[in-house]
Amino acid sequence: MLTELTQRHLPLISRAHEVLRSREHWSPYPEDPDAYGEKGPAEGEAAFRELLGRPFPLDQPGRDGTVGPAPEEGGEHSPYGFPLGISYPHSDPAALISAMRAAMPAWRSAGPDARAAVCAEILARLADRPHELAQAAMHTSGHNPVMAFHAGAVHALDRGLEAVAQAHAEQTRMPAALTWRKPLADGRIFALDKSFSAVPRGISLLVAGSVFPTWNGYPGLFASLATGNPVLVKPHPRAVLPLALTVRTAREVLHEAGFSPDLIALVPERPGEALAKRLAVHPEVAIVDYAGTTAFGGWLTVNATQAQVYTSVSAVNSVLVESTPSYRDMLDNLAFSLALYSGQLCTSPQNVLVPRGGIATDEGHKTFAEVLSDLGTALDRLLADDAGAAAVLGALYAPCVLERVERADSGRLGHVAHHTRTVLHPDFPDAVVRTPVLVQLDAARDRDRVTLAAEWPGPVVLVAAVDSARDGIALIARTVRRSGALSVGAYTASREVERALEDACAESGVMLSLNLTGDWYLSQSAVYSDLHGTGLNPAGNATYCDAAFVANRFRTVAVRRKAADGFM
Amino acid sequence: MLTELTQRHLPLISRAHEVLRSREHWSPYPEDPDAYGEKGPAEGEAAFRELLGRPFPLDQPGRDGTVGPAPEEGGEHSPYGFPLGISYPHSDPAALISAMRAAMPAWRSAGPDARAAVCAEILARLADRPHELAQAAMHTSGHNPVMAFHAGAVHALDRGLEAVAQAHAEQTRMPAALTWRKPLADGRIFALDKSFSAVPRGISLLVAGSVFPTWNGYPGLFASLATGNPVLVKPHPRAVLPLALTVRTAREVLHEAGFSPDLIALVPERPGEALAKRLAVHPEVAIVDYAGTTAFGGWLTVNATQAQVYTSVSAVNSVLVESTPSYRDMLDNLAFSLALYSGQLCTSPQNVLVPRGGIATDEGHKTFAEVLSDLGTALDRLLADDAGAAAVLGALYAPCVLERVERADSGRLGHVAHHTRTVLHPDFPDAVVRTPVLVQLDAARDRDRVTLAAEWPGPVVLVAAVDSARDGIALIARTVRRSGALSVGAYTASREVERALEDACAESGVMLSLNLTGDWYLSQSAVYSDLHGTGLNPAGNATYCDAAFVANRFRTVAVRRKAADGFM
Repeated sequence: MLTELTQRHLPLISRAHEVLRSREHWSPYPEDPDAYGEKGPAEGEAAFRELLGRPFPLDQPGRDGTVGPAPEEGGEHSPYGFPLGISYPHSDPAALISAMRAAMPAWRSAGPDARAAVCAEILARLADRPHELAQAAMHTSGHNPVMAFHAGAVHALDRGLEAVAQAHAEQTRMPAALTWRKPLADGRIFALDKSFSAVPRGISLLVAGSVFPTWNGYPGLFASLATGNPVLVKPHPRAVLPLALTVRTAREVLHEAGFSPDLIALVPERPGEALAKRLAVHPEVAIVDYAGTTAFGGWLTVNATQAQVYTSVSAVNSVLVESTPSYRDMLDNLAFSLALYSGQLCTSPQNVLVPRGGIATDEGHKTFAEVLSDLGTALDRLLADDAGAAAVLGALYAPCVLERVERADSGRLGHVAHHTRTVLHPDFPDAVVRTPVLVQLDAARDRDRVTLAAEWPGPVVLVAAVDSARDGIALIARTVRRSGALSVGAYTASREVERALEDACAESGVMLSLNLTGDWYLSQSAVYSDLHGTGLNPAGNATYCDAAFVANRFRTVAVRRKAADGFM
Repeated sequence: MLTELTQRHLPLISRAHEVLRSREHWSPYPEDPDAYGEKGPAEGEAAFRELLGRPFPLDQPGRDGTVGPAPEEGGEHSPYGFPLGISYPHSDPAALISAMRAAMPAWRSAGPDARAAVCAEILARLADRPHELAQAAMHTSGHNPVMAFHAGAVHALDRGLEAVAQAHAEQTRMPAALTWRKPLADGRIFALDKSFSAVPRGISLLVAGSVFPTWNGYPGLFASLATGNPVLVKPHPRAVLPLALTVRTAREVLHEAGFSPDLIALVPERPGEALAKRLAVHPEVAIVDYAGTTAFGGWLTVNATQAQVYTSVSAVNSVLVESTPSYRDMLDNLAFSLALYSGQLCTSPQNVLVPRGGIATDEGHKTFAEVLSDLGTALDRLLADDAGAAAVLGALYAPCVLERVERADSGRLGHVAHHTRTVLHPDFPDAVVRTPVLVQLDAARDRDRVTLAAEWPGPVVLVAAVDSARDGIALIARTVRRSGALSVGAYTASREVERALEDACAESGVMLSLNLTGDWYLSQSAVYSDLHGTGLNPAGNATYCDAAFVANRFRTVAVRRKAADGFM
């Protein structure tokens, strides 16, 4: 089966290599839900329903109990308003780690091609059932259905394949073997046979987040697995299911391909177990991938010094609105970015900076107050009816998000220019859905600066007056350096402002998106083309998916020997 | 000048890229000393003599005092028996760091090609005077003249160019710019102009060692500089001169090429200043390269968590002698490895493991005692006369090395099978030169196992009886995992033993050299072909020079904007 898998998937990996160099548009996983069969959506929903209210089927070594299904036992609750009722097996980490150590040599000696092929097969199996994965994403992270299908399923598969391809490229940079020949001064040739093998670092731990467990988790998971490291998958307690489906599929494929399924294992945690902290400092854990809070990311960096730690943490993303030749299109694009998934993406814009003297547009000069008001109107237009609004907003993934919205809406952060609205979901009456609140601030006021420097994940938008474009750019750079950012946006017709922004974003280390209108949004990241994160600011040290993200997950071990044709 | 430099050096960088993929033999810096002009040696020595007994000319910002020339002020003393009498300027690190921050933007925006060309020019200037660099290496680290010329000069330049080429390759993997086009379902094309720029992480600190400050220091120095990071060069107090010459040359070239010379600075330390510790945890220091002790490498890993830390520390290298069809050649090769630079290389073999039942050879069965005795005879043959011996051994680089040899020679580690001998250097009567002592141990004795697990840098060779080849392989793997190793050697005619060694070395993460005879030695590393270090065992986390060594020294910042031809 391994040969067949290699033949089937290596052309795909090669194509991914090309695209990763050219950065052109590409994906082997269609974005169109209909591409996966007419019955896909219904079958996916049925498969999801089938999982509810019962133990999740996963056979791992060292089982010592259960997580869930009750909330107080760690059970999940859909942001759309119902408990999933699923319980997961809990294993003794020592047993899993021991099984992983035993499984490593065969996986290591299989080599980069076989590992890439097995990983690609895992992704292919997941791609056979993207609607099930989407349902899982929707009912754990609260995605809207389209985003659940994209970011929760097919784009996550893209991020996984991207990591597999990068890992394969890095591991095959050197020849597997060569005869090294050095001409000597006396005319003889001096020869050594050399071979180079990729050797994994050890056990890899994925500490996944709650908002994009697959999209944010697959890069580390597949980069580690493809480079030969077994992976412990520690899901966020609110979003176990997407990774449980992933681990189950991966174990099946590994087993079928002749490897130990224990090269990957799910380690859900019981309430209060603090499993991530314990595992992250385990001497056998050589790699940690983490998506979550700045606080825990910092803790990992300082404490898990035995491991390579890759973090993706808090971000405060800003947009400068300086001038535009497409006022209406700008407002629509911006409103969609703010509303999408209720601003809960790590790339969602939060701070909208507008010069206090207003801006030049194709519709004439607009005052600060007009821009603010027109942005509210654009949001109203986008989110006019509940069904349409829910399809954009999704649901709030956790009670803390709702608390933040309500706090902002009460005027405690600043003047409320546009209130949030409770949306009644047509299918899920208990879903927690809110439109964004627009809070008006002034970046010249110290108190407001503090507010702008903090992360308010969720539908909280801070629209702040700045003295000038230059003032706004300086504030953006400061915010990136202090609070971290994944994305900076700007609307400007001025080449000078563009240049100043480019310099500021290069210096502070953040991606810049200029004058986006139409169907592409600040929060979007095109896999194989865009890099997610720079690693240069406090939003994290990992980039999906540059060479640095994979190159340190394995090392190369050489053998040199006297060559048969060499004079030694 | 920059354009001219780029035109001159980029073909060299491209050739290095090819070689780094093919791993074939190559070097732009000839190994033959005569290739650098007939007068080279005399001029190099004259230039070195000119430096002695006076302040080293180096003009850096923030000067606040002097290091040296007196030993109690941090002055250097040649292992060949005389004080160098050189003083170096001491600068306030804050002033240097401030100057470096100011110099960064221009160096960053110059881009990978220009940076690679400037770095290659620095190396070319150093290659114009390799004999001066060799003299500096000889009279700080105690190299023999040939090794000083090779490892101290031309091979160090190779390691530098290798790092520049790797850094250039990594920074140019993605297109500088492209138009990204995504076909939409309605037939329109959706387009974004994207650009990608390499952005350095921050200030890089090189904490260099005393035995190979250039060979071990250039990889980090040039990898950081080529990726845009200014470099603080903190030399070892016993080996300042080679890096002072390097920094002076680099500052000259940077200035001539239109950049701030402050992109690199020498920070020698006063006795007791603990400068490395202070600088390593400075918040502006984003990268630390360190070659030295395991203790300080560990300290850096735990404390300098704000930085990427690359370490190259202690190693205990083993050789298994199991069987050979070339007994005499094996003994000669092994004796040379043990004697070269008095076993002070980080790759020098220390533990020689021989089955207690003896070995099969082309000269018939040899008992353990015969192998031990014949190895002593081979050493005597190699080191028969003082002049020849001194040309291989060099001098002991520090009093602590002499103490170790004398301790071993007193029988305190075990039975002395072959005593050390004091060699009178023909030109330098005060040089401290000793031949290797062979200590006989038994790996089955607990006490001897402790001795075998420790590092004894210098001319101390532990020849230990093992129960069998399998027992020896297990001991090697244990030693690699516990104490770290850069190189494992073996002599065996058995394919089975080879395979077991290959597995053990892959598992424990160390390079294996099999059956070396003739003119290539266990301790040698061919730049552009061999990787130095694996990063998988306690000998360090850095590899000269894989992608992981350079890929994380910069990150990529993208700009996306609405394309002129795009439907947005």
